[in-house]
Amino acid sequence: MFTRETAPKVLTDEQLDAIHAQGLRLLAEVGTDVLQEDARKLLEQHGCRVDGDRVYWDSDFVLEQVAKAPASFRLKARNPERSVVIGDGSPVYTQVGGSPFVSDLDQGRRSGTIADHDRLVKVSHAADVLTCMQSGTVEPMDLPPTSRHLDVDISTIRWSDKPYVAYGTSGPKTADAIELATIVHGGRAAIEAEPVLMVVVNPNSPLIWDTRMVETLVTAAEANQPIVVTPFLLAGGTAPVSLAGGLSLEVAETLSGVALAQTVRPGVGCLLGSFYTPLDMRTGSPAFGMPEAVLAILAGRQLADRYDLPYRGGGAFASANSVDAQAASESVMSLWGTMLAGTDFVLHAAGWLEGGLTASLEKLALDVEILRIFERMRQGIPTDDEAMAYDAIAEAGPGGMFLASPHTMNHFRDWLYMSPLFRTTDFAAWEQQGAPTGEREANAAWKRMLESYEDPGLDDGVRAELDAFVAKRKQEIPDFEE
Amino acid sequence: MFTRETAPKVLTDEQLDAIHAQGLRLLAEVGTDVLQEDARKLLEQHGCRVDGDRVYWDSDFVLEQVAKAPASFRLKARNPERSVVIGDGSPVYTQVGGSPFVSDLDQGRRSGTIADHDRLVKVSHAADVLTCMQSGTVEPMDLPPTSRHLDVDISTIRWSDKPYVAYGTSGPKTADAIELATIVHGGRAAIEAEPVLMVVVNPNSPLIWDTRMVETLVTAAEANQPIVVTPFLLAGGTAPVSLAGGLSLEVAETLSGVALAQTVRPGVGCLLGSFYTPLDMRTGSPAFGMPEAVLAILAGRQLADRYDLPYRGGGAFASANSVDAQAASESVMSLWGTMLAGTDFVLHAAGWLEGGLTASLEKLALDVEILRIFERMRQGIPTDDEAMAYDAIAEAGPGGMFLASPHTMNHFRDWLYMSPLFRTTDFAAWEQQGAPTGEREANAAWKRMLESYEDPGLDDGVRAELDAFVAKRKQEIPDFEE
Repeated sequence: MFTRETAPKVLTDEQLDAIHAQGLRLLAEVGTDVLQEDARKLLEQHGCRVDGDRVYWDSDFVLEQVAKAPASFRLKARNPERSVVIGDGSPVYTQVGGSPFVSDLDQGRRSGTIADHDRLVKVSHAADVLTCMQSGTVEPMDLPPTSRHLDVDISTIRWSDKPYVAYGTSGPKTADAIELATIVHGGRAAIEAEPVLMVVVNPNSPLIWDTRMVETLVTAAEANQPIVVTPFLLAGGTAPVSLAGGLSLEVAETLSGVALAQTVRPGVGCLLGSFYTPLDMRTGSPAFGMPEAVLAILAGRQLADRYDLPYRGGGAFASANSVDAQAASESVMSLWGTMLAGTDFVLHAAGWLEGGLTASLEKLALDVEILRIFERMRQGIPTDDEAMAYDAIAEAGPGGMFLASPHTMNHFRDWLYMSPLFRTTDFAAWEQQGAPTGEREANAAWKRMLESYEDPGLDDGVRAELDAFVAKRKQEIPDFEE
Repeated sequence: MFTRETAPKVLTDEQLDAIHAQGLRLLAEVGTDVLQEDARKLLEQHGCRVDGDRVYWDSDFVLEQVAKAPASFRLKARNPERSVVIGDGSPVYTQVGGSPFVSDLDQGRRSGTIADHDRLVKVSHAADVLTCMQSGTVEPMDLPPTSRHLDVDISTIRWSDKPYVAYGTSGPKTADAIELATIVHGGRAAIEAEPVLMVVVNPNSPLIWDTRMVETLVTAAEANQPIVVTPFLLAGGTAPVSLAGGLSLEVAETLSGVALAQTVRPGVGCLLGSFYTPLDMRTGSPAFGMPEAVLAILAGRQLADRYDLPYRGGGAFASANSVDAQAASESVMSLWGTMLAGTDFVLHAAGWLEGGLTASLEKLALDVEILRIFERMRQGIPTDDEAMAYDAIAEAGPGGMFLASPHTMNHFRDWLYMSPLFRTTDFAAWEQQGAPTGEREANAAWKRMLESYEDPGLDDGVRAELDAFVAKRKQEIPDFEE
């Protein structure tokens, strides 16, 4: 139920063909800028035409390379029981990432710190439904930008034994992330044999592959660590205001990224990433949860299927500034599209607020609850004899009550979802409790999650090695490097 | 896009068969109580076995009768341009109904009055997406319960020229509703030729057809006014805690109601209504927006299709006591199921709060916004040349911006949905505005809707006749009658 096979088809085959063809045509005739010389040379060697920074991508080359990417792959966790498969039909969710601000009801909205990062990792780790972590879940603004990529990866590795997306947003930072992973997982050969982290690369839409992103992609590919290629398409900003046009850009940018990665390392895991959101022309800010974005999530699934790539799309996106009716509406709207698409990998599946500027703990608890409800729905409707309940109904008979019946008593705990967050308190009692809103209940919910957190521990020897590497790198990294 | 044809199949054909078979078996072997003598006699004449109040429904009779109900029908509005077809693939939405309380941010939650009823009708009438009205949208507690059915139908007829669901919740009240409609629509023959109102009947689950509901159903059927047959199934209360068991009750109760209606008047419009919600066993109250309820909405669509009946299911259900993150989560969860099911007729599609006890104006505005977003999604993804935007993308080229491009300027107003309710104000500006929540924006939204309301007027002669009828009936109705 609710898998890639049952995902609604928002594009006909003909429409899909047209978008595919235009994506390839853009690559071949308009081309992309590739702001990294080695990559340009490599592409030229493979038959692409290069003119200055511009690369005109040969369509056959692109499709041949993309075909080398696997339809699914395993991502190993340091606790092997927590390893996940991306592309096997079960969605893998991570919490929010990259937010400069953090917020909760107790302390309000403020710049993130490494302590906030630790806490967000712990709360996310405690949520069973989040089976993958995102390093850099909040930016630790109390640490230097030149080296904080090391601190957030350490925070993620230390407080969770789930697999993770590394913070790496440049070649050197990605190399550091890979170095940390080799320490945890027993060396470079081990992680090349079985990938242990993922990186996200966002081409600079429209149609630019900048130095950092190319180097991130190449560094990850060389180490056989999977790459999520996601154009950041804002309709009316970095993309046209028509979804079809935006999707053709998505094809051009994801396929060129995947082709480059496969050229570097055939068979490295690559995801087709979809992120398309309209700009609110009244403010110039992205408007999340809107109809175009939901359609884009569903269309992205169809594109990924066409190229037989695992799919990254959707998330718990919201533009709202507080965890209110708008935040929930936008987020549930977006998450429904995500769930229906049978999305393989969902970044930002919990905690995203204020257009991603804030990692909200209450929002995280709310989103986790929505994901749990989806997981329950995906189990479908059992129709064995006990579920059909003929005898129970016959025994109750006309006018009977099921409240205290044996059938109810035997099964309600397992069969009825009782939300720890959404309450059915009657109005008078609710007023006596001080009229707690959903945001207030979510505050209690993430605190329960944090209380339930169990430290997975980390081997002392590994920890010492990690610390030594970080200390060395912090000495090497000049202050001015970004 | 998002029609009954594309509705997710949450039951396999085999599961559907099993639920169908059990529904018929319950009718035949357990039977229903029918607490109205004429109806029992009629059913006995048609081959059902009757023992005291109990009727054992012959399966062939039931299926033969159900087959007489139309797959779709037209519901005529007093403004013919506002007539709707139920069952043609387009959803018909009404606002909330039957709530004893009304609330808005300005006056808080209080008992409903006829003035509140008038206002709710006006706001709902102003919402284009609500194409049908529900009389009794709030209970006017300032009017006697014995005759307020007349006042709310008058309020609905006076302030809206859309088709409507009458308040009738007993035989005499339904007869009054029909009498009012005959005055508006030019006599009994006219409304029998083309139906103008609908009634809702809820069997007393499990398996009781009480006097009022039978008489409501029979009175409507005799006048050829369509009937929405909706069992009110609370898992763990009036239904088992297993959805499959609950669905078999839904089959038994809807099919028996439809069969009775068709026996009275072959061909009268009948909807299969689905309302299945788990009880929160911690409070004994229904918990809305939960996974079982979403699955039930989708399963109900499959049942309705099996019997080729138009489908009523879902709505903007929420248990929350205020228009907060919980309310929005529950409601959007429920509305997504409703939309995906390609539901033909949706009662309570806007304004439902506090488990239906409160008609909230802010919630109404919020729900209307969600419905609008769905309507936009249902339009799908155009891929004509202008939408494909090849030239616009090529012209922008790598690193180009679409913000001020001719393509964007020409199309953004039509192609990007800009929500009047959901805002993308940056945090600093939002704080300066007093940090308005979604609830506050919804307050402004319904006031804009009320401001945009255009009085459809009502012919003076018709109005005088209606008033005379109401005055006569109020004299006739004894105070003690309910």
